[in-house]
Amino acid sequence: MDISVIGLGKAGLPLAAIIADSGFNVTGIDLDSKKCELINSGENPIPEEPGLESLIKKYGGKSLRAFTDYCSASNCKAYIIIVPLFINEFREPDFRTLKGAVKSVGKMLKKGDLVVVETTVPPLTTEELVLRWLEEESGMHLGEFYLAHSPERIMSGNCISRLREFPKVIGGVDKKSGIVAFEMYRKFIPNLHLVSSARVAEFVKNIEGCYRDVNIALANELYKIAEELGIEFYESREHANHEYCHLLLPSTGVGGHCIPVYPWFLIKEMERKGKDEFADLLRKSREINDKMIEYWANKIVIACLKIDKPLNKITICIKGITYRKGVKELFHSRNMALAKLLADKGFRISIYDEMFTREEIEKLGLAWGDPDLADLTFDPFDLKIKLNAQKNV
Amino acid sequence: MDISVIGLGKAGLPLAAIIADSGFNVTGIDLDSKKCELINSGENPIPEEPGLESLIKKYGGKSLRAFTDYCSASNCKAYIIIVPLFINEFREPDFRTLKGAVKSVGKMLKKGDLVVVETTVPPLTTEELVLRWLEEESGMHLGEFYLAHSPERIMSGNCISRLREFPKVIGGVDKKSGIVAFEMYRKFIPNLHLVSSARVAEFVKNIEGCYRDVNIALANELYKIAEELGIEFYESREHANHEYCHLLLPSTGVGGHCIPVYPWFLIKEMERKGKDEFADLLRKSREINDKMIEYWANKIVIACLKIDKPLNKITICIKGITYRKGVKELFHSRNMALAKLLADKGFRISIYDEMFTREEIEKLGLAWGDPDLADLTFDPFDLKIKLNAQKNV
Repeated sequence: MDISVIGLGKAGLPLAAIIADSGFNVTGIDLDSKKCELINSGENPIPEEPGLESLIKKYGGKSLRAFTDYCSASNCKAYIIIVPLFINEFREPDFRTLKGAVKSVGKMLKKGDLVVVETTVPPLTTEELVLRWLEEESGMHLGEFYLAHSPERIMSGNCISRLREFPKVIGGVDKKSGIVAFEMYRKFIPNLHLVSSARVAEFVKNIEGCYRDVNIALANELYKIAEELGIEFYESREHANHEYCHLLLPSTGVGGHCIPVYPWFLIKEMERKGKDEFADLLRKSREINDKMIEYWANKIVIACLKIDKPLNKITICIKGITYRKGVKELFHSRNMALAKLLADKGFRISIYDEMFTREEIEKLGLAWGDPDLADLTFDPFDLKIKLNAQKNV
Repeated sequence: MDISVIGLGKAGLPLAAIIADSGFNVTGIDLDSKKCELINSGENPIPEEPGLESLIKKYGGKSLRAFTDYCSASNCKAYIIIVPLFINEFREPDFRTLKGAVKSVGKMLKKGDLVVVETTVPPLTTEELVLRWLEEESGMHLGEFYLAHSPERIMSGNCISRLREFPKVIGGVDKKSGIVAFEMYRKFIPNLHLVSSARVAEFVKNIEGCYRDVNIALANELYKIAEELGIEFYESREHANHEYCHLLLPSTGVGGHCIPVYPWFLIKEMERKGKDEFADLLRKSREINDKMIEYWANKIVIACLKIDKPLNKITICIKGITYRKGVKELFHSRNMALAKLLADKGFRISIYDEMFTREEIEKLGLAWGDPDLADLTFDPFDLKIKLNAQKNV
């Protein structure tokens, strides 16, 4: 059986490679023709993903082939959709990319085909929107084809091991779809769990993200309280944590495509139902995390009091601009937001990030700077503010 | 060396018994003369605590003796204070009991004595209030005596095993106090950890409670969202939880002397410092948990729609009134609050609780009722609403 994977990004390509490694012919679809060429010549377009290179080398252009046009996948029996879903400026999900992919699949859907959505979506998206789009485009009804949801649970830098070891859930929009999807997926996902519905599978992924966002907000809040009271937060946390307590680490906030996005899926869903107060904690946590840059900006300014120079002459270097250490990704990066916040206020801010060249930093509209030459540096990953003399403040 | 334990309640008596079991002479102090008599005749006043009975039988009246007057403990070299600390109607800690105990200890304090506070207190209480009270009463200064904090970390029904196995922290108000206290405590607490200060030890316990309160609020919020969307919460939670995700269980709220109290310690401390917004998540979580009774009251009323009787004729039985299943304790019990909320609205509410007799229930100003005879029952521990015919709704 040939399987198509729609979307060969950081989540889709590792999945496609794992499927090829299980003996299937995989037809990958991606808009990026350069990426398709690389894959087809056995070259890995995501070098930072351990274990991916050998798989692409082995299967790329052979049992794993990549195309920009959907019709190359018309002979497949299963379509896995793993394209990005963003939120717009009103925090509402922007379904355009997903809708386009689903409709393209719908056009070539044949009797008995299976469609699995891996993109993380708000609850009920698969059984309501995706099903409607597929039925509209294919002219068939559910039962003639099968539809399920299995949220990707990867993490940049651990994709291959996550797919091979981490528990993964799958649920159908009806019972038969769930069984058909489970039977196929278990051939390449060893730790697979069939849940009672697509909406449960969707919700599993949503609430996992909410857990992290709320618990990061809690860590940030407790860190602020500890600082205010002159108490060592990290030492306290280490001793508070045990089998029933799992306090996370404080930060400059939460960035990336996942954790700061999923709470909005549920918040907006509750707003639509007139139950705004059912998502109070999620909304408050988002607010706390997003406002952490103001807290850190204030700390940095206070630290400037120890420097015997006019404030407008003090050079401040932010040592990190990505949303997470070691991942070259700026989406909703709170570290970039912090740099911009301080620069907008008029501070002399420069950026140093080992993942970016000076030119790349400058292209973002920011000043590059050597941390050794700055009067003050802030490392957003270990939350340390240092003065020139390497003195901790 | 003789050790005194001030307060022989659910936390103090197991600790006193453990200390006696390690070969020390223990002088217990408690206001309850009947309890002291029981202990001195080898009888266990807390029968629901596994493992306690054999220790009281073995040491009670011998190396563990209980008195109502402090002067019986005047020859001791170490004083462990483990009395309750409540919050008043303004959510402020009510230090009266603690202050009384500390001052009584202060009066008989001798050079070289050690005082350890086990009562969970707001951060800085030991080094500020307790130290001041001791110095005032003893006429000595720190250095002539030692002072530390080691928060009790027991849990009703698991006290003995917690003391013998669970990690416990201890921290001094100065370095020497920490070392002296650690050296003594390690003789009866096997899993003991010295932390850098009393305030860290205080904070450890505070934030552990906050973690639980916030995460119960999160579970309650996600439960409400799941119900609103027609999604199986428990199934979703089971699959969301893994090594990086620890979603707790929903409930009617949080009761008892600990978890609903500790967040207020930090909230009030921040208010005093004009940093109210540093405790926003803690405050919101308290609110969500306390309001869960309104959510459940509403659910119960909606379930009454399925009963073909006038609403004022429907009998509703709440199957549980304690704050936690299996613990006969009503402090801040949300289940009692739920029963009262419904009764105050005019519903025909009765209570059934296997830990209470009919007379005890009626003494609380509530009606007792046989759940089999009620039209509807609500079990607050498994959150199931059942109609007379045992039908789940």
